[in-house]
Order: sequence, then C-alpha cells, then structure tokens
Amino acid sequence: MTQNPGNTITISVDAMGGDQGPSAVIAGCALSADRNGGIGFIFHGDEAQLTPLVARHASLRNVTEIRHSPDVVRMDDKPSQVMRRGRDTSMWSAVSALRDGHAHAVVSCGNTGALMAVSMLRLRKLHGVHRPAIACLWPSRGESGFNTMLDVGADVRADEESLLQYALMGAAYYRNAFDAPCPRVGLLNVGTEDHKGRAEIKEAAALIAEAAEIGRYDFVGFIEGTDLASADVDVIVTDGFTGNVALKTAEGTAKLISEALRAELSGTLASKLGALAASAPLRRFQKRMDPRRMNGGVFLGLNGTVVKSHGSADATGVSAAIKLAFRLAQSGYQERMAERLASVADAQQERVLSRDAATEDNRPDIEEAGQE
Amino acid sequence: MTQNPGNTITISVDAMGGDQGPSAVIAGCALSADRNGGIGFIFHGDEAQLTPLVARHASLRNVTEIRHSPDVVRMDDKPSQVMRRGRDTSMWSAVSALRDGHAHAVVSCGNTGALMAVSMLRLRKLHGVHRPAIACLWPSRGESGFNTMLDVGADVRADEESLLQYALMGAAYYRNAFDAPCPRVGLLNVGTEDHKGRAEIKEAAALIAEAAEIGRYDFVGFIEGTDLASADVDVIVTDGFTGNVALKTAEGTAKLISEALRAELSGTLASKLGALAASAPLRRFQKRMDPRRMNGGVFLGLNGTVVKSHGSADATGVSAAIKLAFRLAQSGYQERMAERLASVADAQQERVLSRDAATEDNRPDIEEAGQE
Repeated sequence: MTQNPGNTITISVDAMGGDQGPSAVIAGCALSADRNGGIGFIFHGDEAQLTPLVARHASLRNVTEIRHSPDVVRMDDKPSQVMRRGRDTSMWSAVSALRDGHAHAVVSCGNTGALMAVSMLRLRKLHGVHRPAIACLWPSRGESGFNTMLDVGADVRADEESLLQYALMGAAYYRNAFDAPCPRVGLLNVGTEDHKGRAEIKEAAALIAEAAEIGRYDFVGFIEGTDLASADVDVIVTDGFTGNVALKTAEGTAKLISEALRAELSGTLASKLGALAASAPLRRFQKRMDPRRMNGGVFLGLNGTVVKSHGSADATGVSAAIKLAFRLAQSGYQERMAERLASVADAQQERVLSRDAATEDNRPDIEEAGQE
Repeated sequence: MTQNPGNTITISVDAMGGDQGPSAVIAGCALSADRNGGIGFIFHGDEAQLTPLVARHASLRNVTEIRHSPDVVRMDDKPSQVMRRGRDTSMWSAVSALRDGHAHAVVSCGNTGALMAVSMLRLRKLHGVHRPAIACLWPSRGESGFNTMLDVGADVRADEESLLQYALMGAAYYRNAFDAPCPRVGLLNVGTEDHKGRAEIKEAAALIAEAAEIGRYDFVGFIEGTDLASADVDVIVTDGFTGNVALKTAEGTAKLISEALRAELSGTLASKLGALAASAPLRRFQKRMDPRRMNGGVFLGLNGTVVKSHGSADATGVSAAIKLAFRLAQSGYQERMAERLASVADAQQERVLSRDAATEDNRPDIEEAGQE
C-alpha cells in the first residue's frame, strides 16, 4: 500500500460506471467518508468531470486521489470486447490500482459481466478456485439482519465442485463481514427431502457436508426459496442462473408490493389521512426494507476484494457498497479465505489420490491379465 | 359425463390432501358453489368424516357425491411409492374419476410429486408431449391481473424441446383461462441480451420464435426475474427448478414484507392509531396482494385438467383453485391444446425429416468413399 500509509483503508472507485453518473457515486463516497474514519479513495474516470464533483464534499478533501481515464465501459458492452479493448476505461484503471497494491478494494457500479472479466484478467483467481462467484446480501430475520446468497450471476452453470467452493467462499465471506465464527450454510433446492433436486445438487450436498469441519461452517442441508430470509441459515449456495433469477424475483416482488401499497394509500382523501397518520411507522418500514441497504455484490475467489454496486444505485446505495468494501478490507478476510480454499483443495487432492490408490489396489491387474 | 347430465361442470376433489384437513377443502368448495351456478362435486376420502362436513353447507346439497377411500397420500410419501401402493388413496380415486369420465377436472391439495405421478399414470400424456408441466398464476400489472409461469416444479430439468412445449401449453392455457386470443410469451433468463444464458435457453428462444404462428402467441424474447409481474408478458417459460425457486422466493419475500409492515404498525400507541386510520386502504391492499387469489397450479400436457391447490390452502384458497378448474373445464381448452400440440409435433417432425434429407444430400457418401 504505497499511497496510504498508516491504518487508512483505500477504496479504488470506478466513478463512471453507474446509471446516475459520477455525481451519485462521489456523493455516496462522501457519505461513507463522513461515517467511517480512516477511509481514502482513488477515483477513476474523466478528471475534468470528477475534480469539481469531489471539491463539493469537504469530507473527501485530503483523502482523495483522481486518476484520469478517457474511456468508459457501457452497460451493453460485451465482456469479451472490454477484455480486448478496455485498457483506457475507468473500470480497468480501478481494478489495476488494486492489483498494483495502491488500494485495498475496488467498487464499481458498472456492467457486471465486464467487471468480472476485467477482475479475472487483472487479479487472477485464487489458488484452488475453478470459478469465482458473486455473493449478494439478502434481508434476514436473523440477528445480523442479513443472509448472503451466492452465486448470483458470475456463471450460469455450476457443477458439484463449484457449489462446494461457493459454500467455502460464502462461509469465509459471511464470517468476516458479520463476525460469525461458524456460519450456517444451506443449499438451495426445490424441496428439503433428500430425493429432491438435480443430480449435481445431491452430490454437492454430500461434498459440502464432508467439508464442513475444514471450512468451519455448519451445513443445514437443503433450503427452499421460501427460506432465503430465514434466521436458520446465513449462507445460501446455488448456481448463478438460479441465484440471479431469485435475486431479481425478490426485487420485482418488493417493487410490486410497494407500488400496490402506495396506490392504496393515495387513493381517496380518507386513505390519504390514514396514510398521514401512519406515516412514521410506514417510513420506518420503508427504511427497514430499503433495498439500497443490501447493495453490494461481492466477487469471491479472486486475488482481491471487488464489490459490484447496483447500476442504478444512488448515493445511499453507493455508500452501502463502499461500507461493505471497507469492512471486508479491514477484516483481512481475503487472506484467510485464500488459506482455507488452498487447504480444502489440498485435502480434496489427497482424497482423490487415496481413492485412486484404493481403486488401484482393488482392481484386477489388467496388464498382467493381458500378458497371460 | 355419466354422473352430471346437462351443463353442470363436475369437479373431482381429493378432500383429504390439505394441511388444514377436509373441513377447509369442503368449505372452499361450498364457497365456490355459492358463487358459481352449474357446479357439482365428487368428494374422495373418508366417508365417515366427509358426510357431516358436507351436510354443514346448504350450497353443497344435491350437487355432491361422496366416494369412500380408506387411505391418504401423506406429504412425505415418495411419488414412486404412491404409484405402486396408492390405489386406495383419495388422490388416486379423485384422478380416476376424471379418467373414467365422471368429472371434468380434478383438484387436490396433496403432495405435488405424487399427484403428478398418479395423474401421468392414470391420465397419460397428450400426444406429442415429452414432459408435462405445472403452471402457476402470478400477480401482474396487466389488465387480467395475472401472468402465468411454467414449469414450477414438474421436472427439475428442461431441454430446448421441453421449453418449446411449455411455451405452447402455457399459451393455450392462458388463452383459455383469460380470454386472450394471442398471449405474449417470454423466456426467463439472467439478462435480455442475446448472448446471455445457458445454451439450451438460447436454442429454446429460436424454437419458440419459430413456432409462434402455429402456437398462436407472440414471442417477446428474454425476460428477467424483475419482469415476472410485467404488463408486457402473459406467459413466462422456464425450467421446473428455476420456476419453483422463483415462485417460492416471491412467496417468501411477500411474507417478509408483510411481517415487517405489521411489526411497524403495531409497535407504539401512535403507530397503532396510524394503523387504525389507515386500516381500510391497508385491508384493500392486503386483499389485492392476497396470495390465496393466485392459488392453483395447473398440470399441463395430460389427458385431463388437474389443478394442484397449495397444501396449506384455507377455504378461500381452495375456492380459488376450484374456480380455476371450473373455468378451464368450461372453456374446453384441453381439447384445443391437444390439437395444437399435435400439429406442432407434426410440423417439427416434417422439419426434422426435411433437415435430415438436406444433410443427406450435402454430405459425402461415406459408403461409396469406403468402397474406393
């Protein structure tokens, strides 16, 4: 960390990615700087735009560096294009600052696929990881107020080995983000009975149960879509297709309900008076269910902490993503997760080797048989 | 229809399946009978229990027959067990009454897997159907107030051909349930861009687009989890794993939100007064979002109309499922869907044959080459 000596945590921020433009991103960072001492920023993007925006916020003074990049990744750019021709973008620059040791974490509101591609290219995967995953936060009835679910969109497929890695990475993430020594891991399925679900999910259940001790988590078995907010689970493991659909379905459902509630409460004069009387509890309710509090998808399985903020995040949403990146960087979970994944990879390797050896012992010696 | 001459629609009801016992099922049927003229019931289950329950409801008098069955399918019975040893259950008896032409549709609150297994065994699949599907109703911003999604749990996997069949069956179902001449079909994916998603989904998109004319629907392309309640789509096609998770995720999200709303409104005296003032619009809101209105998963692709009511349905929920079965039986959609599926199957067969013939023309003649 050459730029920020002492205990400062530096967040490298792609300031150009969001739908609401750099002003919302920088306002969100300023909110975070107000609340968290010891935070610093490197902003990546168009210097001419960023300089006056940063100057507006007193809390950003002295803790901010701006790095100019002339280009921006657009929401409809294909990841493969960005990998080939994205060197001049703010996203590329933001990830590179983490890679070069100038920052402790990256935050971007940009195109998810491109951010994953650039992060894999620049940061590389951790030893023992087949596929990185994206973990999201989910409102929970539990004490911390949050569960985490992964993968929510890094990869549309996951075999049993990938699902096992998601369990290990998700548990390491949750442990450090929420100070939970032994997170409870559940595997998303269409029912809780043993005979339900796809073959790879049943196999994954066996692998995840087996690795519980080494991964320092409790495996609570299958859970269903109705249980995603349950107080009985912390980490929900699923493939990126299902996770992405579940996340967006919950988002859509919450939106539909809040529209219907608003429509009813603004219908007639009597309703309006009622709404006025109920406005304090309704405001508290909205605050409690505010999806912006959940903002921040964390990329797991890379050499470095990358947080994807929602494309449409406003300042409140961005500050939630910044806070998450800050907390993760502080906890040093990245190093501990790397260790744990490596030790599980070694244990698996040993298991495969000893299984192969056992098979070797038991099978008829084909070469000898052939020689007879 | 030997039992109910004239225009009566007879619903064969598995009275024993639900979590709330036969009294809720029969009360739900009575609600339906109050509202729909020309409905009749055959109740299957323990005659000693059912007779006094039916006697409580004046609206059931003269339109009800009870058929005794000594056994019940339990929620944890495996479908394979029920197929082998389920002949004496109320579920088996209810499906058999449809098969034997004594009723126009079946409704059961029982074990979904067992109900599908017994229905496939007793009713058989329609000509040209690989796999039946379960279609659910979804609250919608559109005019009808409902979208439909399938499959939500008949099969945990679906290849591109199955997804095409779901599109055809879903369109036929929606057309007849909601009087929509040309339903709009969307395919659930993790993004709306062409390059997103699994291989079979991209292939399914091509097949579904191609069959739009013959299936009499509009194909609107990919949709995401956030769009499930959209006014721009009527039928949402997905595999049974994803559909089941999405359905239960929405259910869980709605429950979480309503708990949080209730907690806020009962917190302090001031909140309670506010809630009281807002109670009329809140009641209307709850009625509008009531999941019981959406109750009724329809099994598509079988020789007969089978409606699965939620296991925990109360009388209101059961009456919604009965109403759906009644409306579908009235519309005669079963016959029209069978015709349409058969004609698509024929068209596909022709396409495959002509493609094979073209391949035959273009490839080097291997046998001749071998002979040289």
